[in-house]
Amino acid sequence: MFPGAIADRDDADYVVVGAPLDVSTTFQPGTRFGPDRIRRFSETFDDYDHHTESHFSDLGVADHGDVRAWDDAAEYLDYLEGVCTDVVWDDATPLVLGGEHTVTLANVRATDPDTFVCLDAHLDLRAEYDGNELSHATVTRHVLDVADEAVILGARTGSEAEWNRASEADVTVVPPGDVADWEPDFGDRDVYCSVDIDGADPGFAPGTGTMEPFGLAPREMRDVVRAVGETGDVVGFDVVEVNDRDDGQAASLGGKLLREFVFADAVGSV
Amino acid sequence: MFPGAIADRDDADYVVVGAPLDVSTTFQPGTRFGPDRIRRFSETFDDYDHHTESHFSDLGVADHGDVRAWDDAAEYLDYLEGVCTDVVWDDATPLVLGGEHTVTLANVRATDPDTFVCLDAHLDLRAEYDGNELSHATVTRHVLDVADEAVILGARTGSEAEWNRASEADVTVVPPGDVADWEPDFGDRDVYCSVDIDGADPGFAPGTGTMEPFGLAPREMRDVVRAVGETGDVVGFDVVEVNDRDDGQAASLGGKLLREFVFADAVGSV
Amino acid sequence: MFPGAIADRDDADYVVVGAPLDVSTTFQPGTRFGPDRIRRFSETFDDYDHHTESHFSDLGVADHGDVRAWDDAAEYLDYLEGVCTDVVWDDATPLVLGGEHTVTLANVRATDPDTFVCLDAHLDLRAEYDGNELSHATVTRHVLDVADEAVILGARTGSEAEWNRASEADVTVVPPGDVADWEPDFGDRDVYCSVDIDGADPGFAPGTGTMEPFGLAPREMRDVVRAVGETGDVVGFDVVEVNDRDDGQAASLGGKLLREFVFADAVGSV
Amino acid sequence: MFPGAIADRDDADYVVVGAPLDVSTTFQPGTRFGPDRIRRFSETFDDYDHHTESHFSDLGVADHGDVRAWDDAAEYLDYLEGVCTDVVWDDATPLVLGGEHTVTLANVRATDPDTFVCLDAHLDLRAEYDGNELSHATVTRHVLDVADEAVILGARTGSEAEWNRASEADVTVVPPGDVADWEPDFGDRDVYCSVDIDGADPGFAPGTGTMEPFGLAPREMRDVVRAVGETGDVVGFDVVEVNDRDDGQAASLGGKLLREFVFADAVGSV
Amino acid sequence: MFPGAIADRDDADYVVVGAPLDVSTTFQPGTRFGPDRIRRFSETFDDYDHHTESHFSDLGVADHGDVRAWDDAAEYLDYLEGVCTDVVWDDATPLVLGGEHTVTLANVRATDPDTFVCLDAHLDLRAEYDGNELSHATVTRHVLDVADEAVILGARTGSEAEWNRASEADVTVVPPGDVADWEPDFGDRDVYCSVDIDGADPGFAPGTGTMEPFGLAPREMRDVVRAVGETGDVVGFDVVEVNDRDDGQAASLGGKLLREFVFADAVGSV
Amino acid sequence: MFPGAIADRDDADYVVVGAPLDVSTTFQPGTRFGPDRIRRFSETFDDYDHHTESHFSDLGVADHGDVRAWDDAAEYLDYLEGVCTDVVWDDATPLVLGGEHTVTLANVRATDPDTFVCLDAHLDLRAEYDGNELSHATVTRHVLDVADEAVILGARTGSEAEWNRASEADVTVVPPGDVADWEPDFGDRDVYCSVDIDGADPGFAPGTGTMEPFGLAPREMRDVVRAVGETGDVVGFDVVEVNDRDDGQAASLGGKLLREFVFADAVGSV
Ligand SMILES: [Mn+2]
Ligand SMILES: [Mn+2]
Ligand SMILES: [Mn+2]
Ligand SMILES: [Mn+2]
Ligand SMILES: [Mn+2]
Ligand SMILES: [Mn+2]
Ligand SMILES: [Mn+2]
Ligand SMILES: [Mn+2]
Ligand SMILES: [Mn+2]
Ligand SMILES: [Mn+2]
Ligand SMILES: [Mn+2]
Ligand SMILES: [Mn+2]
Repeated sequence: MFPGAIADRDDADYVVVGAPLDVSTTFQPGTRFGPDRIRRFSETFDDYDHHTESHFSDLGVADHGDVRAWDDAAEYLDYLEGVCTDVVWDDATPLVLGGEHTVTLANVRATDPDTFVCLDAHLDLRAEYDGNELSHATVTRHVLDVADEAVILGARTGSEAEWNRASEADVTVVPPGDVADWEPDFGDRDVYCSVDIDGADPGFAPGTGTMEPFGLAPREMRDVVRAVGETGDVVGFDVVEVNDRDDGQAASLGGKLLREFVFADAVGSV
Repeated sequence: MFPGAIADRDDADYVVVGAPLDVSTTFQPGTRFGPDRIRRFSETFDDYDHHTESHFSDLGVADHGDVRAWDDAAEYLDYLEGVCTDVVWDDATPLVLGGEHTVTLANVRATDPDTFVCLDAHLDLRAEYDGNELSHATVTRHVLDVADEAVILGARTGSEAEWNRASEADVTVVPPGDVADWEPDFGDRDVYCSVDIDGADPGFAPGTGTMEPFGLAPREMRDVVRAVGETGDVVGFDVVEVNDRDDGQAASLGGKLLREFVFADAVGSV
Repeated sequence: MFPGAIADRDDADYVVVGAPLDVSTTFQPGTRFGPDRIRRFSETFDDYDHHTESHFSDLGVADHGDVRAWDDAAEYLDYLEGVCTDVVWDDATPLVLGGEHTVTLANVRATDPDTFVCLDAHLDLRAEYDGNELSHATVTRHVLDVADEAVILGARTGSEAEWNRASEADVTVVPPGDVADWEPDFGDRDVYCSVDIDGADPGFAPGTGTMEPFGLAPREMRDVVRAVGETGDVVGFDVVEVNDRDDGQAASLGGKLLREFVFADAVGSV
Repeated sequence: MFPGAIADRDDADYVVVGAPLDVSTTFQPGTRFGPDRIRRFSETFDDYDHHTESHFSDLGVADHGDVRAWDDAAEYLDYLEGVCTDVVWDDATPLVLGGEHTVTLANVRATDPDTFVCLDAHLDLRAEYDGNELSHATVTRHVLDVADEAVILGARTGSEAEWNRASEADVTVVPPGDVADWEPDFGDRDVYCSVDIDGADPGFAPGTGTMEPFGLAPREMRDVVRAVGETGDVVGFDVVEVNDRDDGQAASLGGKLLREFVFADAVGSV
Repeated sequence: MFPGAIADRDDADYVVVGAPLDVSTTFQPGTRFGPDRIRRFSETFDDYDHHTESHFSDLGVADHGDVRAWDDAAEYLDYLEGVCTDVVWDDATPLVLGGEHTVTLANVRATDPDTFVCLDAHLDLRAEYDGNELSHATVTRHVLDVADEAVILGARTGSEAEWNRASEADVTVVPPGDVADWEPDFGDRDVYCSVDIDGADPGFAPGTGTMEPFGLAPREMRDVVRAVGETGDVVGFDVVEVNDRDDGQAASLGGKLLREFVFADAVGSV
Repeated sequence: MFPGAIADRDDADYVVVGAPLDVSTTFQPGTRFGPDRIRRFSETFDDYDHHTESHFSDLGVADHGDVRAWDDAAEYLDYLEGVCTDVVWDDATPLVLGGEHTVTLANVRATDPDTFVCLDAHLDLRAEYDGNELSHATVTRHVLDVADEAVILGARTGSEAEWNRASEADVTVVPPGDVADWEPDFGDRDVYCSVDIDGADPGFAPGTGTMEPFGLAPREMRDVVRAVGETGDVVGFDVVEVNDRDDGQAASLGGKLLREFVFADAVGSV
């Protein structure tokens, strides 16, 4: 159980869903251990949050546990979408813990946002990767079949084709150096917020499949998550690409960012 | 390059082929790093072998390098089978370094043995695993579409259905306690020898996807590999399921067993 | 949840209880992560057991989860004893996952055995350790306040005072070299079986607080656990002293031995 | 021996005292290895310091070695206080290497400061933690029984009760974002300076019991330690909460900060 | 092969040369694994670079492989100088992957620059270290026998004698806090650029022999490498002091900086 | 201090000397951390030994600490020989903790044995290794300049030239399979006993520079050390080639074997 996620599933406003899919990880595998690891390294966080003057355990968070993964990503995403859709039908916000970034697609399909906001080192706008149309490296492209626009914060690398795709009107790329100045302005659109932990500089999150130097500082990521959460427009959220190949830095940061989102969103929704 | 594999590919009697497939690993992933790791931890072995009074670098071993893996196991096996078939057509013995056990299937198809001899903790006789008919846990079943019989040495676990399949006439299971007494007797049949490193007790090879206690000692594995090699009947060989999640024990043992096979086979073929 | 522990708590014949106490560990701490780690590394084991021709998930095992530990060992043992006593009152056998060896005491008090059988490198017969009367190094002495006799298998070290205590009539020490020949003969006495993972040689279980070389092989430990289980006399069981400071060897062995016990006991009780 | 701590104990101006207490660590244990690890990772530092144009080995630092810890924290703190008091009576400044933060209390009692300045992610103002009134999470509260005021730099988390306590007049909390602008102004008060390594962001010090993201950068910590040292008002110092669960980052930073303090204090005392 | 280094050696504009010398490492050894590790952690980088709108694989980079090291540093440097000289004679720029910093000397001798620009925590201006005149800690002093001047960026430690040497006219030290404002101005001088990975703060590159806190951020290092590369004046380049004692942070950063140099230099040379 | 080595140096019968030389390690470096690591992992051993009914701390063992190593192996060996000679002149037995195997030579020169008994996977009979005549791989050859004969127990690999050298009259090789049956018979000759930890199978001692599978079990090594110690003929002893690249298995085994030797020798000398 995610620490403090003590709400009954039926009454919950937020539901944590573990999604340990780990089939298309390009380099260093292990995201299958991400959900467990994030929960474990979140045990040390105080229930109370000074910034919002609230207790995490008062915010109506339940933990669905993990949706056990298997090798067929397409089938798995369908099943996971069903789990997330159940959360939505129960008037709660699904908070997915990956697993590879691909799992975002299931939650996006379940929550049907207008705008997709993402922290990520990578554009993830490929049409396919090594022939796989459901690789983690294609997730934002698939998301754009659902959402009208994508804002990718901290992106610093991609193929030439991805950068061409990123230059179209429905994609906004905010390079790492500009993230500190970015402010959300969503109007009345529904928003999905996805945190690929590799948006951080590898010094802060080495436990991820594809480290990419020159990334974000943890406080920059926090400020984005808080600002997005405070809009009150978010319909779905996730933290993905955490694996077990470091000393806990990535999991600790991932768990903390999930909490920051919930605190900000709960206040922002008031 | 595998240390000592200095032969020209065209003149080689043995060709090392790295096959870093790592898509269906059930528990702890990382076999994609197996080929590199085996090569690296084999650097410390003396070129000379006292047992056979020969030098490894004199035995005509070439290293093809790795056949880069992608997510579609069926396609990858087809491609890898082609690489191994090229080796066979060049009158050399393909020595595959896994990667997950599934890669054995490609080499078996390329070398078309009558008898399949395997060191493995697991029966690998499933029809499918989580709906995947090409999981590492199905490899011996698929092999039996090519070979007439399978001898599984050190096997100590499987599903009930696998044990039922294992009770049929074409499968012989030699439990760990009986391996020391086993002797090969292949008549004039062509033999394939596959070493799943998890045949060893986890104390000797913790760097593997699915540790299974109560396994073989390294010398027991060596004696099997030597005895099989000395028959001179082997048409293909592999070491699989080594990952990077230990301090090198699994890779060191895997690399050593490959060498033992080559030394024994080169003598046995005289 | 321990893999396969799918029984309802109310109907269960065995109840796994995690007891992550980690306050008196002498050297390398981390047994607080033992229960989680044992459960995780047990995920790879087949549900079916060929030796007994039975499925683990058919044997009525439930998982109570962890009894969260705090700093006061005496208080914690009282509380844990209550949890184990509940299991006993429900006519089930408590299977404790440590945590430091001290937790055995709670389960022994709850199950009130006549004979205590223990796999351990250490005698654990101290009166106190550094002034602490509830150190893991005192557990067998405390157990003898409940049980009439203790059989310590694989013990190879202790203080002079402990060896003196061990020479009394109620203690039998079976040194590592004699364990293979040991056979249980309990008459009609109730038996408790405790597995301190450091009974194994450090090569097979490096992830423990106080490694002691020249220990048992995994199959020797298995044969003891099986033989004890098959007597049908066991009222309580535990695996303790597994920490997270290795590559999973200790946890894998610990989880496997728990399963061996359940398989043997379920058959032995028929 | 801390590298360069070559002074005779009798003539020393500073005495390093290792205090490997590790009984109340909440999450990841291992601070018992902190003193050794800090000493070891300090071996690479040049004796000469360019900033102060002085040699560490000229500054009169001796190393008392470790005060071996046992399970009874209250007793241990009494004993450790005695060791630190001896240092004070010898007109030297005790520099404690933890161990858990609790050890600070012994040094504070021995040095009797007016003001307590602390780098820490946590307020450590609890009345008790899990019933333990001597947990590391209570240390600053206990310190306030000795000192008149506490300044906690980099603090970013605590329970609601702790934040209430922190709002009283004798506590000043400087959040991470304000630390760079903080300047010491102690008048003629005696000051104690405590460095809980978790004040740093986990990216810079993952080897600690309870990582808390969004923390200080190493240079921010250095500037605090230097500024405090340069006042010449410091009567006692420590670095605590370093464990062995990273690749040396926490220990290297901890050892460096101790040196920075000594260099600054030696100059500031001129 | 360094990923993307697909040019034929004969046509190459840049040649990667692995130099795994690891004999004088002062504290934590393992730089012998640096070249392999940098290549491996560079596999995840996109071939395309958005900043320069170019593909790495179009830039004419070849990989010579490793020049196997032995114990005699002087002999090894001679041999390595020959390999680098061959590269120079082929009108290509040698890019050395260390190995300890000493290997820089071979490449400097082969490329004969006027100005030596170095990112390093250390001055490396010793006359000898423990009697060894060819220690990594002497490399910049030896370099000054070839080059007319040295600019050491990010240096923050050295012996008193080194700082004295650094105060002479041919050495410029840019402390970490001033690196962001530094701009290259080489006139028409030939420049060599050396990246000792310990120039970075240990949080970003823990896998190095001698961590030194208070170092550079990755983007600061990138800006230096880019600015130097864009001058078009560089005749030789290296990344050194990466070992295998972290989770890949140092290797990932090192590989990325090499790529940044090549991209910038290829554009700057237009 | 080696745990229990509490004797005054002047009165000691045995003196532990740390010799962290680590310059010629062929593959995985880190033996420089061997002495510290052996001492640390020996902290868990009981002072009392049941086999000999004696306390380690009663046996007159002192710890000289480490003889700091530098890069020039020849000079270092001279210096170390001096330290060991001092021990001999004080009528004590030097017990060296390596460091690479080369350090044995210094202790052999100081103790001048007739017979050299060694546990080692390797013959170490090379004339040079990569041009280095003082590599660890040459140590037994150099030893034979001092001793009249060498008995190498557990040796299983070497170059062809080494095996030829080993066939001469002054060398006896006992392969791993025969070690259990070997018994010492030294007549009245002085004996030196050297334990290269890689004599063990890698499963029991992965933390060493050059793992070689198919090695000895820990109890086999213990029986050799005990039998040799009980002769009372030993003039010098060492444990070498332990590094920090495992989870403590090699260091724990090494420290235990040193103790076994002292216990046996102290009894054998009565
Ligand atoms: Mn992504
Ligand atoms: Mn990404
Ligand atoms: Mn298999
Ligand atoms: Mn298997
Ligand atoms: Mn015990
Ligand atoms: Mn024990
Ligand atoms: Mn604290
Ligand atoms: Mn803290
Ligand atoms: Mn340098
Ligand atoms: Mn440096
Ligand atoms: Mn040797
Ligand atoms: Mn050896």
